Amino acid sequence: MAVRALVWGENVHEQENELVASLYPDGMHEAIARLLREDQGIEARTTVLQNPEHGLTEAVLAETDVLVWWGHAAHGEVADEIVERVAERVWEGMGLILLHSAHFSKIFKRLMGTPCALKWREAGERERLWVVNPGHPIAAGLGEYFELENEEMYGEPFSVPEPLETVFVSWFQGGEVFRSGLTYRRGAGNVFYFRPGHETYPTYHDANVGRVLRNAVNWAYNPNAPYRHLLDAPNMPVDKALEPIEERGGKLHKPGEAGFR
Amino acid sequence: MAVRALVWGENVHEQENELVASLYPDGMHEAIARLLREDQGIEARTTVLQNPEHGLTEAVLAETDVLVWWGHAAHGEVADEIVERVAERVWEGMGLILLHSAHFSKIFKRLMGTPCALKWREAGERERLWVVNPGHPIAAGLGEYFELENEEMYGEPFSVPEPLETVFVSWFQGGEVFRSGLTYRRGAGNVFYFRPGHETYPTYHDANVGRVLRNAVNWAYNPNAPYRHLLDAPNMPVDKALEPIEERGGKLHKPGEAGFR
Amino acid sequence: MAVRALVWGENVHEQENELVASLYPDGMHEAIARLLREDQGIEARTTVLQNPEHGLTEAVLAETDVLVWWGHAAHGEVADEIVERVAERVWEGMGLILLHSAHFSKIFKRLMGTPCALKWREAGERERLWVVNPGHPIAAGLGEYFELENEEMYGEPFSVPEPLETVFVSWFQGGEVFRSGLTYRRGAGNVFYFRPGHETYPTYHDANVGRVLRNAVNWAYNPNAPYRHLLDAPNMPVDKALEPIEERGGKLHKPGEAGFR
Amino acid sequence: MAVRALVWGENVHEQENELVASLYPDGMHEAIARLLREDQGIEARTTVLQNPEHGLTEAVLAETDVLVWWGHAAHGEVADEIVERVAERVWEGMGLILLHSAHFSKIFKRLMGTPCALKWREAGERERLWVVNPGHPIAAGLGEYFELENEEMYGEPFSVPEPLETVFVSWFQGGEVFRSGLTYRRGAGNVFYFRPGHETYPTYHDANVGRVLRNAVNWAYNPNAPYRHLLDAPNMPVDKALEPIEERGGKLHKPGEAGFR
Repeated sequence: MAVRALVWGENVHEQENELVASLYPDGMHEAIARLLREDQGIEARTTVLQNPEHGLTEAVLAETDVLVWWGHAAHGEVADEIVERVAERVWEGMGLILLHSAHFSKIFKRLMGTPCALKWREAGERERLWVVNPGHPIAAGLGEYFELENEEMYGEPFSVPEPLETVFVSWFQGGEVFRSGLTYRRGAGNVFYFRPGHETYPTYHDANVGRVLRNAVNWAYNPNAPYRHLLDAPNMPVDKALEPIEERGGKLHKPGEAGFR
Repeated sequence: MAVRALVWGENVHEQENELVASLYPDGMHEAIARLLREDQGIEARTTVLQNPEHGLTEAVLAETDVLVWWGHAAHGEVADEIVERVAERVWEGMGLILLHSAHFSKIFKRLMGTPCALKWREAGERERLWVVNPGHPIAAGLGEYFELENEEMYGEPFSVPEPLETVFVSWFQGGEVFRSGLTYRRGAGNVFYFRPGHETYPTYHDANVGRVLRNAVNWAYNPNAPYRHLLDAPNMPVDKALEPIEERGGKLHKPGEAGFR
Repeated sequence: MAVRALVWGENVHEQENELVASLYPDGMHEAIARLLREDQGIEARTTVLQNPEHGLTEAVLAETDVLVWWGHAAHGEVADEIVERVAERVWEGMGLILLHSAHFSKIFKRLMGTPCALKWREAGERERLWVVNPGHPIAAGLGEYFELENEEMYGEPFSVPEPLETVFVSWFQGGEVFRSGLTYRRGAGNVFYFRPGHETYPTYHDANVGRVLRNAVNWAYNPNAPYRHLLDAPNMPVDKALEPIEERGGKLHKPGEAGFR
Repeated sequence: MAVRALVWGENVHEQENELVASLYPDGMHEAIARLLREDQGIEARTTVLQNPEHGLTEAVLAETDVLVWWGHAAHGEVADEIVERVAERVWEGMGLILLHSAHFSKIFKRLMGTPCALKWREAGERERLWVVNPGHPIAAGLGEYFELENEEMYGEPFSVPEPLETVFVSWFQGGEVFRSGLTYRRGAGNVFYFRPGHETYPTYHDANVGRVLRNAVNWAYNPNAPYRHLLDAPNMPVDKALEPIEERGGKLHKPGEAGFR
């Protein structure tokens, strides 16, 4: 069965900026989806910020295995309620791939619990992404490095939690470095941050970037049923304890009462 | 120079529940502070939810090296604005120790980005905390395990991110286990979650618990100046690049312009 | 294409101890392989210590995707040369699953770099394995916990490196706990330690154990070509540097010379 | 009480190579020790490969809190027995700092369980070390980066296990990157790998390098008694179990018998 990917695009600069529109006439989300569709095992749809509920209704999310997120100018326009909804789906097991300027998206900051800040410079300089963890599935089929001749620079320190694994580290022509591919698990959901993708460059027409994105979607996919119980805090009754125990000491709660949240 | 610890107490059940009041006549926060003061290198103050700004003004936080947090019944009464203020101080380098039911505090959930849910049972059963990482500073001076004869049970799965290190794992009489001591770094701030501490038991009169708390405060202490820059995303001008580069390709931003957030 | 698993058995107690022989008349390795074969995507062969080169010739290893290792009484009889050969295959990308008393196998200690010691008691007590990381592929299809009514106890501290992720934690009837499922990556190879499997109990006839083993083999499988270059330390000539540089300063090495090892 | 650091030097190129001798007339180990002694809380001694037992007798190691290791040309001359002795002291809690070409030292490979290989180029190019984890104690007092105008290049992939935390990432003039500061715990011992330090450059006369080394020694120091029990695998008698249990099922071992190793 195919992995059901959904590419979420902010779709602002494609409408407002001629250069971006010329690079991505169908929107960046469509260019990204096209890269994903090169893998016949991935079924990639797209949606955009401007749709009702930003295109992220309960029903749509329930049918999404992996969500791919590109946003930049309009992070603040994403409704908090939708951010919480996406976070819950990640905890239940939906994969999430965050691209480039999505480091400052509400959903990434929500799941990381840190500022997610970094240095930046828009100079079209050369970026060379080194594979520091070649055995990781996200690096499969790549060479030892790949280059993007024109990219925005992002520089350390990147204020995110220490990842499960670091997959890529970028070298920039102007003298900076950046941890460009980082994996996390949040609840049952796999999360991957991937650095490149500035809208004024043809990054989503690059073959290596496409390969990383397909690898990432397949890696993030969790075929199992939603892990909804990871959101619950059940009271385990004494008389059903796995080992026989007797109640002792003082109590706050009556039998069957829910806990404080 | 002494480590300036601040113990934050919710101070609700001490006022409303006779049993809790009898165990902790000065409040749980005072009992916790007393344990910390056994280390002459720690200067422990206390504050409570009911104070203006919950006792966590900018000025107070600026003079706090490590914040110790106990809350249970009134997580929802903590103002979101104060939670953000505390989070920023953690990112800047303030240590944070979360105790027991603080797993569901707003500040812990904010910093973890996960549900932080777990199983529970209030039966006064035996808990045995095993030291799984004896070389960790937080375990210094403990034996291979220590016991609390009456505690609330917390059971796995504990829906938190994989920690930097697991220090304690608890065995419960009724058949459950729990990762009871977990370390994280968020921004420049050290974060430690420590499981025991239900308000109807004399946990904060226990010598081993006291030792863990003192160790944790000393471990979490970061003597260096606030790392405020971890919250910023500076634009690095092309003409000040560390290596000479020339601007190329399309641009979104004008020189000196701030980025999107 | 099927995952080619090879189950390596020490095959000593099956020959010498009547109880073990009665539980595992074809050897423990065959019982383990039988559990793996319930997944049609796994092709499981077996071999034993007593074979030439312990059954782990270069040719056999080259055709092995995931090696499953059970040993106990005869760790010392495994030739160091074969241990190095297996380690190299792991670094190249072969998966490795270590079972129970294999915590003291030469290959596990070689890959961990630590004593891998633990407490133990052979009393046939109850073990309850809790899933602490339900979203991990190795836990797929399991309930919140599963029980083995008779197992040897292993107790903390387990002197291994902090894992990438902790998947299982065991509760023991006699009062101990143990981190029972731990993941590592060594070079390009995925490594999983799984605690249960004492030879005097019918553990390898248990359905949940079978499920974990099949999950682990599938998780550990790396479909990509051997990552042999992870063992090399190539000299990168100055005149082929990715960015133009000029040689400066003093030198130890002549052009093209190999480095010291 | 002062931290007792011991700087171990290979002391080969200082004797054989004029350039190295001119940069480090008293040996590299003495230059390193001098940097450490700028912290009055560190008491730094030195020893060299050529001493009996390479200067690493049981008695010397017993009085060493943190061992700092520089080696390059003569890794193979270090006796395996001494390597095991040092490894045991690390597991017991001694800190270990590995410098530059010590990536291929027997002791580092022993503790990592991986090839520890990397790319290299001796061209005296510029290295810029970025602090990616500013709150880590090893980065205290540094700016956002520091430069070494002439260094040997080391390039990724660096085949080591994923670290507990990445502290530094290096940018190289010729186009490579490297994870230059990595932390591990092995048993109770803190381990830090720090990249710079090629013998043909004046790296150990650099103020920032000195600061890193002093920070690292203080970070690695574990003031507590040796954790010798992490090397033992004690049998826990049934009649002394923490919770009352009865022996059941089959047994391999007689009461009090030692386990297999």
